[in-house]
Amino acid sequence: MARVARTVSEFRRARRELGTVAFVPTMGALHEGHIALVNRAALLAESVVVSIFVNPLQFGEKEDLGRYPRDLEGDLNKLPEKVLVFAPDAEELYPEGDSETRISAGAAGETFEGASRPGHFDGMLTVVAKLFNIVEPQFAVFGQKDAQQVFLVRRMVRDLNFDLEIDVVETVREPDGLALSSRNRFLSGAERSDSLALSRALRAAQSAATSRNSAMDAARGILDSARGIDLDYFELVDPKSFRPIASGFKGEATAIVAAKLGSTRLIDNAPVVIG
Amino acid sequence: MARVARTVSEFRRARRELGTVAFVPTMGALHEGHIALVNRAALLAESVVVSIFVNPLQFGEKEDLGRYPRDLEGDLNKLPEKVLVFAPDAEELYPEGDSETRISAGAAGETFEGASRPGHFDGMLTVVAKLFNIVEPQFAVFGQKDAQQVFLVRRMVRDLNFDLEIDVVETVREPDGLALSSRNRFLSGAERSDSLALSRALRAAQSAATSRNSAMDAARGILDSARGIDLDYFELVDPKSFRPIASGFKGEATAIVAAKLGSTRLIDNAPVVIG
Repeated sequence: MARVARTVSEFRRARRELGTVAFVPTMGALHEGHIALVNRAALLAESVVVSIFVNPLQFGEKEDLGRYPRDLEGDLNKLPEKVLVFAPDAEELYPEGDSETRISAGAAGETFEGASRPGHFDGMLTVVAKLFNIVEPQFAVFGQKDAQQVFLVRRMVRDLNFDLEIDVVETVREPDGLALSSRNRFLSGAERSDSLALSRALRAAQSAATSRNSAMDAARGILDSARGIDLDYFELVDPKSFRPIASGFKGEATAIVAAKLGSTRLIDNAPVVIG
Repeated sequence: MARVARTVSEFRRARRELGTVAFVPTMGALHEGHIALVNRAALLAESVVVSIFVNPLQFGEKEDLGRYPRDLEGDLNKLPEKVLVFAPDAEELYPEGDSETRISAGAAGETFEGASRPGHFDGMLTVVAKLFNIVEPQFAVFGQKDAQQVFLVRRMVRDLNFDLEIDVVETVREPDGLALSSRNRFLSGAERSDSLALSRALRAAQSAATSRNSAMDAARGILDSARGIDLDYFELVDPKSFRPIASGFKGEATAIVAAKLGSTRLIDNAPVVIG
């Protein structure tokens, strides 16, 4: 069972003893995907810090902040003893009930996830900046599953000169292809089965990647005929800009997909080498 | 003559030898007001770091970025030998020509200076956050002359959990009351003389501070009859919110004023105890 600090000052006292730190920010409800991040972090630095914080700033008013799973005790039990967990409550991080100073992700924060979830990425970057300033890590480890988040965090680190390295770990999947997510627990049996169309569409794009258009067509063929899926977007983006690639693009793109299964929103992505 | 680092990596190497640091961010063209900040900084920490950077991000398109005074050699000569100066060029801090990730000051960044200079405070906070991440100081010293800047930087430090203390030094003035500013050199003799109405209005507010309205009336009496001044605003604000105080307010307020003298924009402020 991991140790836990609940306040910034308690954390900062404990931080002094840790040497170099690799940091894994999470919203808790830990699964094997998070454990892969923690295992990676353990290879990078003397100590591992995991934050567990369901950040109200990155949830829209109509989103699932209230039902987002919370189980601190269970999470601590899933982590090795030597991990230091920072698990503040909302009042500790937002003593004014809010943060008037925000990080703005700019235009790339308003597409895809940002289009469906206005303000999401500004709220995410704001809490990540706060956590970087509290944890002062040498490394921060993120999961590739949140591809746009990874893109924007990397850019924030570069743009704001945070003195740390971002490390990205591949998405962990169920044997049938479903990307692990804390939200998967909300899927009914039928939704769980319908959701496999997302990872199938990504694999179809990978297999038909002679050009951008053939990859798109292959994925759309699967998504158009899939049952129970309310598709938000499927797109091929340039990982350097997170903007859609043109039809003549060659090289490594990222296929990204988002859809609702009933009331549960899922996202996934995969690398697609075009040409 | 101070030592100087021109790149982030050169600075970071030198930073390792400095112990605790008190940091004075400037745009150069150093005058006695800056030297007061440096002297204060020397009392706070083992080492003093001064940054000299005319930040394009905080100048509007029609503002005086081009004519803002630059004299690195002269500035280095004004600083003690043991000060480390960080003087990057714009490409070093904005290698993409810009920063897509920005700090947003929120509503309090859109009033007063922010109303006259749209984007100014977001640009200022963005470069200050970058400099904090590069310099990693224990203290940062700002001049009270830029009262709204001080308010917003303090709030950013709190909101984003920067682990440092902000220290504020009183405005240095010419014997006749003019607040020192790098822009004063642009004033003609007549403008220089006309500009004294600003500090006179502040003193009038201080002397007539039985109520908010009497302080405002006293200041306006001077500003309305002053020659050569294109007044932008005069206001009494609550230093805790930087919002205008109500007529029944008691306690310490800040009188703030901004005006153009010809093509040169000046700002000033003073504490006013109401009641």
